[in-house]
Amino acid sequence: MRKVRTYSTDIDLVQERRAQIVQTAVELIVKRGYNRTNTRELATALGMSTGGLYHWIGSKDDILYLIVNFTSDLTQGLLDNCARCGGGTVTQKLKESIKIYFSGVEEFRNFHNFINHVMLSLSANDRRIVYQNESRIVDYFEGLLDEGVKKGEFREIDCKCIAHNIVAIANAWANRGWYLKRYYTIDKYTSEETDNLLAQLTGVPTASVRSR
Amino acid sequence: MRKVRTYSTDIDLVQERRAQIVQTAVELIVKRGYNRTNTRELATALGMSTGGLYHWIGSKDDILYLIVNFTSDLTQGLLDNCARCGGGTVTQKLKESIKIYFSGVEEFRNFHNFINHVMLSLSANDRRIVYQNESRIVDYFEGLLDEGVKKGEFREIDCKCIAHNIVAIANAWANRGWYLKRYYTIDKYTSEETDNLLAQLTGVPTASVRSR
Repeated sequence: MRKVRTYSTDIDLVQERRAQIVQTAVELIVKRGYNRTNTRELATALGMSTGGLYHWIGSKDDILYLIVNFTSDLTQGLLDNCARCGGGTVTQKLKESIKIYFSGVEEFRNFHNFINHVMLSLSANDRRIVYQNESRIVDYFEGLLDEGVKKGEFREIDCKCIAHNIVAIANAWANRGWYLKRYYTIDKYTSEETDNLLAQLTGVPTASVRSR
Repeated sequence: MRKVRTYSTDIDLVQERRAQIVQTAVELIVKRGYNRTNTRELATALGMSTGGLYHWIGSKDDILYLIVNFTSDLTQGLLDNCARCGGGTVTQKLKESIKIYFSGVEEFRNFHNFINHVMLSLSANDRRIVYQNESRIVDYFEGLLDEGVKKGEFREIDCKCIAHNIVAIANAWANRGWYLKRYYTIDKYTSEETDNLLAQLTGVPTASVRSR
């Protein structure tokens, strides 16, 4: 992680303030676009002066970097929760992992839409961090699907392709929310998509899958 | 469609020049970001002077509007091709429609990534046009799936959800290309995803589906 300038020596306080900056910046930028959001507006939204904001960060681009790094923390938190969940069958672990992942996308949908929006504005290095995070999630699901195939719980499938689909469909909850929210809640969406996936993995129709 | 200013009275020529402007603008903006692309650079890329560019459009925002409108034409072209394709079973029509749709995403992936990127910069009206286009594609696939269920070719499924998945998975080819292109060509991706989908719709494993 590269160093972001601050004039404070209180590490805990720096972390706390930066977490606030990240949350508020994402909300503002998702509403107005990155280039139309200036640091003065961000400072105002945070109840700080512009000078006060620059006490915690060195530049506007530092905010992008902090947000990208925050998504790495989100990814790590997600994978930690997934590692702990389930028990018994791979199917059970897959179902619970999907629930954790999808509800994470709902909770941090602003972050997902933010990353989508700023992707072209990111430095090569920041972009690589985003790609790594996404790849780690696909890899996690691919591993789980592989295990399910080996244990005979799932049919022979292209695990990489299906793992990618899980991630694409989860992301769609954030970036196609304008469509989906007309018809689904996150709970309904998660359960429908889980049923669809299990039907695909096991060959057993949706309705019978639900009761497993 | 709102009027975009031009100083030319030659309608055909205006259309031709604007098509060039749209193509070149999309390429540039996807590389550099909307706010970092100025009309001078665009004019240079088109081999025009800035004044020459303003002969065909009234403002930089007009370019956004022209691109959004071009995506409506793309959507219409896609739906026309889908309407003509197939023959015999719904399954056949679905397979061919997916092929047409996915190869369209490949051909115009810059446009997909562009729309993703500028979504937050679009006016409410332009955004509505994008939403309408996307909805029309989901509706088309939903109708096809519904028909397949009614004719007994597919199991009872949530057609809206699966239709949305088809669109999300096609879009993923554009906006998750950085991941997918490591492992798939568009042909391989299309055929894998078609197999996955048909396995889901029919309950028959992937390998058997392929030979149908």
